[in-house]
Amino acid sequence: MNVPEPSTELVQRAISVRRAATYLGQSTDIQRKEALGAIADALSLCRKEIVSANQQDLKRSIENGLSESLLSRLKLNENKLDAAIEGVRKVACLPDPIGIRQLHRQLDEGLYLERLTVPLGVIGVIFEARPDALIQIASLALRSGNAAILKGGSEAKLTNEAIVKAIDHGLGNSSINSDAICLLTTRRESLSLLRLDGMVDLIIPRGSNDLVRFIQDNTRIPVLGHADGICHLYIDSAADLDKALRIAIDSKCQYPAACNAIETLLLHKDIAPSFLDKAIPFFNESGVKLLGDQVCNSLGIENKAEESDWSTEYLDLVLSVKVVSSIDQALDHISRHGSRHTDSIVTNDPKTANKFLHSVDSSGVFLNCSTRFADGFRYGFGAEVGISTQTLPPRGPVGLEGLVTYRYFLKGDGHVVSEFASGAKSFSHKDLGL
Amino acid sequence: MNVPEPSTELVQRAISVRRAATYLGQSTDIQRKEALGAIADALSLCRKEIVSANQQDLKRSIENGLSESLLSRLKLNENKLDAAIEGVRKVACLPDPIGIRQLHRQLDEGLYLERLTVPLGVIGVIFEARPDALIQIASLALRSGNAAILKGGSEAKLTNEAIVKAIDHGLGNSSINSDAICLLTTRRESLSLLRLDGMVDLIIPRGSNDLVRFIQDNTRIPVLGHADGICHLYIDSAADLDKALRIAIDSKCQYPAACNAIETLLLHKDIAPSFLDKAIPFFNESGVKLLGDQVCNSLGIENKAEESDWSTEYLDLVLSVKVVSSIDQALDHISRHGSRHTDSIVTNDPKTANKFLHSVDSSGVFLNCSTRFADGFRYGFGAEVGISTQTLPPRGPVGLEGLVTYRYFLKGDGHVVSEFASGAKSFSHKDLGL
Repeated sequence: MNVPEPSTELVQRAISVRRAATYLGQSTDIQRKEALGAIADALSLCRKEIVSANQQDLKRSIENGLSESLLSRLKLNENKLDAAIEGVRKVACLPDPIGIRQLHRQLDEGLYLERLTVPLGVIGVIFEARPDALIQIASLALRSGNAAILKGGSEAKLTNEAIVKAIDHGLGNSSINSDAICLLTTRRESLSLLRLDGMVDLIIPRGSNDLVRFIQDNTRIPVLGHADGICHLYIDSAADLDKALRIAIDSKCQYPAACNAIETLLLHKDIAPSFLDKAIPFFNESGVKLLGDQVCNSLGIENKAEESDWSTEYLDLVLSVKVVSSIDQALDHISRHGSRHTDSIVTNDPKTANKFLHSVDSSGVFLNCSTRFADGFRYGFGAEVGISTQTLPPRGPVGLEGLVTYRYFLKGDGHVVSEFASGAKSFSHKDLGL
Repeated sequence: MNVPEPSTELVQRAISVRRAATYLGQSTDIQRKEALGAIADALSLCRKEIVSANQQDLKRSIENGLSESLLSRLKLNENKLDAAIEGVRKVACLPDPIGIRQLHRQLDEGLYLERLTVPLGVIGVIFEARPDALIQIASLALRSGNAAILKGGSEAKLTNEAIVKAIDHGLGNSSINSDAICLLTTRRESLSLLRLDGMVDLIIPRGSNDLVRFIQDNTRIPVLGHADGICHLYIDSAADLDKALRIAIDSKCQYPAACNAIETLLLHKDIAPSFLDKAIPFFNESGVKLLGDQVCNSLGIENKAEESDWSTEYLDLVLSVKVVSSIDQALDHISRHGSRHTDSIVTNDPKTANKFLHSVDSSGVFLNCSTRFADGFRYGFGAEVGISTQTLPPRGPVGLEGLVTYRYFLKGDGHVVSEFASGAKSFSHKDLGL
């Protein structure tokens, strides 16, 4: 691995975070709610310091030639800060994800098995630029009973320090130990964080695809995140073309920088001419640059799509368009080039719809609606920890449940396995109410 | 990574397995049940060939000087084969884990979200020696709608080939494509399997800790498995010593080679003298070699435990014993040396019990019973895919649910996000019946 061994000091800090996590795991719903309230209050009290620290970060970053888009993410003015503080109070109101009984079973007389949700323990978060992400992820971690080790970008150093100072102060006014939130400040520490397997239970990267991929390749700790969002919209021959156009425009243009925006439009050959006839002016008007395969080029799309376009996440007002001769060809294209994020079909044929929904193995498979709905808030989770494109759960938009796991509790009265192995006893396996 | 790039031929095979998985994911419960029945029948028909292939494998392995314990795992006589075939029929009878609705929500009028369990896709299984494991894991994979790429040890080559030939034959008599089960035979292929991310969704290693650790370090594909099982039994000052001794003997001796057997016994100082007085003769009688800390040495345990003993998985009739002065010291020891597998406390004090159960962050935390209960069959799962010591779900003993994931299905009627973003519409988020 390309990452340095953690320093003794980092290990010591991780041990104290872990200890705080153990206590946090035993805290009550009300204690955690109150702690978030105290943090929100402390952040409000420190508004001036935070905003002024951010102005220094911005000034330095402008001098260092940081790009416009990164500067706009880095910027934390009073409005953005207020929204983030409001977010903390909203997270406090989310239902407690801890202590939910998922299984309750009698194994034998006097021997009872329960499976209850518990916090993961310690979350490691590595994020670029956006300091409001720090506020959000710290509150999600605490709400679900987890401690967190946070590493922000160096460009946001002063802002992050001011925020964590306020969080510390808030926790000081609560019953939760302030060791539960720990900010790392050097790049060396950030990399070593990846080596803290056994002490950190989950890494959440918030940043570019390159960052996510680097992290995935350099840690044994599970990573919640997605490297690519190559989403498709397939317009079938049996589609309502007005709806199809609405959905296509929304899926591409409503917020093109999002991972759930489409990068490729697949058109059934039967509707391709009439659809493009209508669609090209609309896309032009919305500033979308269209790249087409050969058939599309003959139907009015001027720019040519290269082979690499089918696997490119533009995150911009660019859309590659391809004509397919059948649903099977569409499925094949998605299977080959998709990233198992979200793919949608527009059709009025229930059989075709069904085939699409059960063949595409993405975390979201949609019918007659925009891919932009793939989002934790829109799904009604109340919060979004991240979107995962891995196959194993949690996949897709992940709410607080992504920050919890479960533990099996078995309570007996001197029960031993040898009596069951010998046949003297047998398991009852009787499910009890949850 | 230390593993070779997959060959073109391996990629081609993986593509056909993946295609089979797509069809398998759309198969019905009955189709998969029938396929397992056909496999069981075919294995029965081929009993002679399989057993005779196994005898050749055994003969060659004896000549090559394979160890006694590996030879006993390799051996597949008619009895063991019959038990494995019976296992296939039992897996067929397990409830279908696919298509279970976990969420059903109206997001807006005409816009409905469902979350349904679906197969993972393609499972990669790497196992050493035991050919009956191939039969078991293939049937679990198919039952849950997954295809599987299997790599067995070279010592079992002929047996594995005979088994897969029979499985192929069985699938030929069913509606499931026989491409769904693929056997790799060379070591080079087995290693390249680890590079098939995007084509293989989960790797299940069945073998030594070293194998598991090597795999975890050399693949981006998620791995279901556990590297260590360092389980503890803590006997509190408020314990019933007769029960404690029963539980200690069972946890160590009932099957010492299992990962859920204890490696360390922690004794509260108040009961240590009287407990050891009783226990030492019993352990001696059971052939258990005791290794003690200094206090234990003064209480009659002759052998000294070295520092490394607290982190050693003996998988044998060896037990390290330590005296602690408090529950906190016991918790600290477990947190430092445990592998988050299964830990048990014996106590009649509800407060101490509660503290233990909520502080130890292992997948199984037990009260007044043997650690040996940590097992999918004993928990009533009907099958065990593996035991996971990772923190994220699935953890602990994992049944068929470890081979499934879920997919979000969103069905609308031209719904677009821009209407919600503009405030023209708002989400209803109304939960419907499951």
